[in-house]
Formats: sequence, C-alpha cells, structure tokens
Amino acid sequence: MINLTMKLNLINSISVLLLLVTLIRCDRDNNQNQQSESDSPNEAIFPKGELGPATNFTGKAYNFGLVANDSVYNTLVGNVYFEKSARSNWHLHPSGQILIVLNGEGYHQLEGQPRQTMKKGEVIKVPANTRHWHGATENNSLTQMYILPKTENGFVIWMEPVTDVQYKSNN
Amino acid sequence: MINLTMKLNLINSISVLLLLVTLIRCDRDNNQNQQSESDSPNEAIFPKGELGPATNFTGKAYNFGLVANDSVYNTLVGNVYFEKSARSNWHLHPSGQILIVLNGEGYHQLEGQPRQTMKKGEVIKVPANTRHWHGATENNSLTQMYILPKTENGFVIWMEPVTDVQYKSNN
Repeated sequence: MINLTMKLNLINSISVLLLLVTLIRCDRDNNQNQQSESDSPNEAIFPKGELGPATNFTGKAYNFGLVANDSVYNTLVGNVYFEKSARSNWHLHPSGQILIVLNGEGYHQLEGQPRQTMKKGEVIKVPANTRHWHGATENNSLTQMYILPKTENGFVIWMEPVTDVQYKSNN
Repeated sequence: MINLTMKLNLINSISVLLLLVTLIRCDRDNNQNQQSESDSPNEAIFPKGELGPATNFTGKAYNFGLVANDSVYNTLVGNVYFEKSARSNWHLHPSGQILIVLNGEGYHQLEGQPRQTMKKGEVIKVPANTRHWHGATENNSLTQMYILPKTENGFVIWMEPVTDVQYKSNN
C-alpha cells in the first residue's frame, strides 16, 4: 500500500506542477496580448494634444496639430480626441471641412438637418459656410482627423454652445 | 488505508479539475484579447482597397479612396496599405503631397536627398513638383494616408520604378 500511496502522491504532484506551469504560461500570454494591444489602439497614433478651450467646447476635447497652415499647401490638418459626451460649439468653416473618424463613435450635425452618427473609418464632407457641430456620443469617445482646405479663405468662426437638448436630439 | 487512498484520489481529482478550469479560462481570455486586437489594429480603420497597378508599384500596395476630387475642396484623400518591401515608383505631385503614417513603418525619399524612415504618427510634407517615392520597410508593412491639396494643378505624374539598390540605400 505504501507503493500505491507513493504512486498517487506522484500523480498528484505532477498535476499540481502542470497546473502551475499552465497558470504561468497563461499569465505570460495575456501580458503579451495586452502589450500588443497597447501598441495598436487608434488613439495612440497621435499624442492626445492640448485641451480645447471651454469657450469653444462642451466637455473635454483635445487637439493635436498635424499640419500647420502655410501658403504652399493652404491646408490645415489635425486630430481631435473627444471624451464621451464632449462636443464642439456651433461653428463654420469658410472653405468647408473634411472629417475622418479614426476611432470610436460620434455625432455631427449641419444646421437644419438631423443629427448623424459617425463611426470609425467614415468620412464626412462639411460644406463651406455651413453652421455645424461635432463630438463624441454619450457612451463612446471619438478620435477624429480634420482637414481644412483652401485656408486662404480662413479657418473657423466659432459660435454658441450646442445645448443638451440639441445634442440629444436625434431627429 | 482505503480511506487514505480515497483522500489522495480526491485531492488528485480536484487538482485535475482545477487544471482544466484554468486551461479553459486561459483559452477564453486569450480569445477575448485576440478579439479586441482584431478590432483595434490601425489597418482596420479603412478597408484594404484595390491593388495598385504593377506599372506604378513594386510589390503589393492597396489604395482606398477617402475623398474624391471635386471643385469644392480641390483635395484628394486616400489610404495606401503597402505590404513589406512594397513601394511606389518615382513620381511627383504638381501641388505636393502630405503623408500621414497611421501604422507600421516606411521609407520615403526626395530625389537628391537621403532615404528617410517614417513611423506611425509621423507627418511628411512632400514639396510640389519634386520627384519622390514612398513605401514599406523590408520588415514592416505601412498604412499611410495621403492628402493632395490644390488638385486644380493636377494629381500625380508617374515615372520609373525604384530599383532595389535605390530602395536599400540608406544614405
């Protein structure tokens, strides 16, 4: 019986050893996955940037400039990270604006038209001299590039905040 | 002794059960990580697009148009996914070009200047009417947005392929 007890003990020890090895490997694999995830989120393409002023935004929106204006390209490019529920004031661009959603989900609205939802990968053309606003949805942040063409006509004219009623209205 | 054998068997069974539960949880966690990874890679912001013609590219480069040209914005925007070692021919843009690296690593070179490495998040301004090429490095793919401003002057003039010697020369 000592022999049997020893055998059972051996099997038991091997099982516990396998369990430990599996736990260690599992933890290592998960850590590696987390590492490669932290390399790949779209937010991480550009630095977060500078907090936009409360005079132009409701909630927290951060701007990171990508291409400064000059007389060669006459094109201004940047990236805005909107926290959940953050949005711009109403504003317009003398030559319009191109929005490209890099991550998350947002809203945008041209005055007089219904609010639209926009998602990762979508492109929005905002017409020239048209009052509009854009921002994150209530439940998602938004990472959004913008392109201002023909900057010889100007950049942006800021106006009043988007009210909570306007922000939440989906028709 | 039967009692002892039963106890040891019970401990053994519990160990094996714990091992199985751990394995299943580990596999599930890894699958979840892989799921969220496949949601977040920067390549996935836009569809892969259409294979560029062999007359203009060495290796495989895929173009996905984001903003078609029109007379309102006079701006052409798109995304190119270069496989490892793929690159454009030499070419020029009458109004220059803005490159924005969304993922991976690439090379670009203005004629007469050293080849430059470009990485995720970097912005390159290519001057007007300047012969240049761009593409992925030997070991990394490249996901790269391009902006062509002032398209009233034209889009692109394609020229001869970049030779292997030119591609590999880092000075």
